[in-house]
Amino acid sequence: MARLVMKFGGTSVADIDHIRNVARHVKREVDAGHEVAVVVSAMAGTTNQLVAWTRAASRLHDAREYDTVVAAGEQITCGLLAIVLQDLGVNARSWLGWQIPIRTDAAHGAARIADINGAILVERMARGQVAVIAGFQGIGPDNRVSTFGRGGSDTTAVAIAAAVGADRCDIYTDVDGVYTTDPRIVPKARRLPRVSYEEMLEMASLGAKVLQVRSVEMAMVHGVRTFVRSSFTDPGSPELIGYDEPPGTLICDEDEIVEEKVVTGIAYSKDDAQISLRRVADKPGVAAAVFIPLAEANINVDMIVQNISEDGSLTDLTFTVPIADFDRAQQVLEASRERIGYQVKQGSTDVAKISIIGIGMRSHAGVAAEAFQALAARGINIRAITTSEIKISMLIDASYTELAVRTLHSLYGLDNN
Amino acid sequence: MARLVMKFGGTSVADIDHIRNVARHVKREVDAGHEVAVVVSAMAGTTNQLVAWTRAASRLHDAREYDTVVAAGEQITCGLLAIVLQDLGVNARSWLGWQIPIRTDAAHGAARIADINGAILVERMARGQVAVIAGFQGIGPDNRVSTFGRGGSDTTAVAIAAAVGADRCDIYTDVDGVYTTDPRIVPKARRLPRVSYEEMLEMASLGAKVLQVRSVEMAMVHGVRTFVRSSFTDPGSPELIGYDEPPGTLICDEDEIVEEKVVTGIAYSKDDAQISLRRVADKPGVAAAVFIPLAEANINVDMIVQNISEDGSLTDLTFTVPIADFDRAQQVLEASRERIGYQVKQGSTDVAKISIIGIGMRSHAGVAAEAFQALAARGINIRAITTSEIKISMLIDASYTELAVRTLHSLYGLDNN
Repeated sequence: MARLVMKFGGTSVADIDHIRNVARHVKREVDAGHEVAVVVSAMAGTTNQLVAWTRAASRLHDAREYDTVVAAGEQITCGLLAIVLQDLGVNARSWLGWQIPIRTDAAHGAARIADINGAILVERMARGQVAVIAGFQGIGPDNRVSTFGRGGSDTTAVAIAAAVGADRCDIYTDVDGVYTTDPRIVPKARRLPRVSYEEMLEMASLGAKVLQVRSVEMAMVHGVRTFVRSSFTDPGSPELIGYDEPPGTLICDEDEIVEEKVVTGIAYSKDDAQISLRRVADKPGVAAAVFIPLAEANINVDMIVQNISEDGSLTDLTFTVPIADFDRAQQVLEASRERIGYQVKQGSTDVAKISIIGIGMRSHAGVAAEAFQALAARGINIRAITTSEIKISMLIDASYTELAVRTLHSLYGLDNN
Repeated sequence: MARLVMKFGGTSVADIDHIRNVARHVKREVDAGHEVAVVVSAMAGTTNQLVAWTRAASRLHDAREYDTVVAAGEQITCGLLAIVLQDLGVNARSWLGWQIPIRTDAAHGAARIADINGAILVERMARGQVAVIAGFQGIGPDNRVSTFGRGGSDTTAVAIAAAVGADRCDIYTDVDGVYTTDPRIVPKARRLPRVSYEEMLEMASLGAKVLQVRSVEMAMVHGVRTFVRSSFTDPGSPELIGYDEPPGTLICDEDEIVEEKVVTGIAYSKDDAQISLRRVADKPGVAAAVFIPLAEANINVDMIVQNISEDGSLTDLTFTVPIADFDRAQQVLEASRERIGYQVKQGSTDVAKISIIGIGMRSHAGVAAEAFQALAARGINIRAITTSEIKISMLIDASYTELAVRTLHSLYGLDNN
C-alpha cells in the first residue's frame, strides 16, 4: 500500500472520453490498494479560451479578476472527474484550491504556494476517498482565487504530494518519460529510468519541456519522488498493475540512482539570441550597468560570458536573451550606451544553445575537452561556453544544432543499441 | 443617490461585446451617483455546455459535483465583467458565492438561500466599489459550492437586494417589461408600469416567463422593489439617465400601485395535460389516495377540481399535470386504481389553461361571470374552472387559446389604443 498523487494535464482530460480514461488509471491504483489524490488541469483549449476572453475584456486586466476567470477551467475538470470516478464505483470528491485550502502569496497570476494543510486530505484518503484536486489554483491572503501561471498544475501536484507525505507523485503526460535527448533529432535517444532533481532542473530549463521548472525545484526541496509517465497507455495494461516498475522516468534524489553515467542527457534550445558588447571598459560596475537596465525592462538574461581582457582595460561581454526580447534588449542597450561605454555591439538570433548534463561530471575531468574536440572535428564553431558543476553549455550556429546534438549523444554513449 | 442591484441574464452577457454593453449600463448608474451591485448569469450557452458534460460524465451524477462544474459559468462572467468595468474606469471587483458568503441549505442543484451577510458588500459599495456578484451560486453547510437551479440568478439578485437594503433590484432581460398578455398573440398588449408581487407570482407561474417564481416570492417576503427592464436598449440613451422612470415594469407592493384596474393581465399555458377520474367514491381520503402517489413520483399537480356528487356517493375529479409527465401520471394512476377506486379515467394533452389575473378582483364581483359569458358567446367550451382571490383559471381546448386570450383581453379593457 502506498500513498500516491496522480497528475493529469490538459490533453489527458480534453473531453469526457479522455476523462473516463483518466478515471480508469485512478481506479487501477485504488484497486491495487493505494491511497490516491488526483490533480487535474483544465480541459485542453479551455484555458486558452478563458485567457483570450480576459484579453478581449481589457489589455490591462486586474490579475485578481484574471485568476477568478481562468481558475474556472480546473474547477470544471475536477468536478467532472469526480463524477466519472463515482460512476466507476470509486469513492471520490472534488477539492478547489480554497476548500483545502492551498494558501498562496498575493502575486495573482503567478502566485507561489505558501502553505497547504494536508490534514483533511490525509483523513479522507485514509477512509478510502479519492481526492480530486483542481490544479493551478489556490487562495491568496486577500481571500481571493489565485493561480500559479502556466504549467502550474505540476506545481500543485508536487506540493500536494509534499503536504500529504505521498510516496510518489505521478505526472501523467503525453510523453512516456524523460529522454537522453529529443528523440525527433536522435532516434536512438533512450528513456532514462531515473534522473536526479538537479539534472532535471537543467533539462527542464533547457528545453526538455516535460515538467515545469518550479515543480522540479519544489520536488527537490521537499524530496518528492516524481514520476513522469504516459497518460495514453491503456489504463488496464498488465504492465501498469503494481506499484514499482511501470514505464516512465523517476525524478529523485541522486542517492536513488544506481546506474552511474558521466553524462545523463543532451539538451538544446533555439529560443535564445546572442548579444555581444565589444571593447567594454573593464572596471567595477560595468556588468551592473549592462544587466540592471535589462532586468528593469523584464528581460531575462541566461548565459553570461565575460573574458578577461589582455591588458586589463577593455573586455568583451557576451550573453543571451529570449529571441522574443531581442529587439527590445538592443534598444535598452542603445539607450545605456553612454553609461556602459562599449564600442561595438553585435547580435544574432541565429544561434542555438547545446547543453551536456550529468551529475557524474562532478567527479570526471575532461568531459568538456572531449566535447570541444568532437565538435571541432565536425567543423562546428563554438561561440561561447559556460559551465556549472553538472552542466556544460555551448552557443553555436543554429544550423549545426542537430549535428551537434547527435555528435555529443554518441560521444557520451547515450545511443540506444 | 440610491442603492441599486442590477441583474443581467445569459443573453445579456453572451460575449465580450455584450458584457461591454452591460458595463455601460452599470457605469451609467455609477455616474448618476448610485451605489451599485451587479449580479450576472453565465454567458449564454455556457451552462448548457457544462450541464451536458456532467450528463455525459454520468447519468446519475453527484449533485455536489454538478454544482462545482456548473457554478464555473457564473464565475467566468463575473470576473470578465469586473475587468471590463475597470477598463471603463469603474472601481469594481468580483464576488463568488463563497466569498460573500451566500449561505444555502444542503439541497445541491436546487439549493435555497439561508443567509447572506451583506455587511462587506455595503461597506465596499459605500466606498464607491461596484460589487460584481456571480449569480446562481452559494456555499452549502458542507463548505461546498451550491447552485440554485435554473433561473437562480434572479433569486441571487433579489436576495442580495434584500441583504444590502437596496432601493431597487433591476432585472435586465430580453423583454422590456411585463405585458397585459403575450404580445405575440395580442398585438395590442400593453406594458404594465407596475404589478403587485401577488399578481406577478400568478403571471410567472402561468407562463409569462420573465422572472423565476422563487425570486418573486423572495421579493414579496422581503419587500424588494423589483424592476423588469430591457438590457438591449442603448445604455447611454437619455431616457435611461436618472433613477425614477425608465421604461419597464416595477413589481412592488400593491400600496404602490395607483392605477386601479380590476384585471391586470391574461395569462395562458399550453404546457399542461388534463386528467379526469370519473365516478370516484366520494369518501374521506380519496384525494390523498390520488395525489400522494403522484407526489411520490415527483409529478407536479396544478389545477384540481372536484365536484360535489349528486347523491353523495360518487364524484368526478379533474386535475392538470405537466405534459411531460402525462404518460407517467397515467401509469401511476393505473397502478393505484384499486386503492383509489375510480371507474373511468380520461385524459387529454390538447388543452390550454387561460388565467385572468388582478388584485382588483378581490373587491369586484361578476368578473368570472363576464368571462364565462364572453367565451360562451364565441363558442368556447370551458372544461374546468378554478379560482383564487386574484385569479380565475379556465381549462379549454388548446385550439381556442388565441381566441380566448384576445376575447378576454378586450373584455377587461386591456387593449392599447
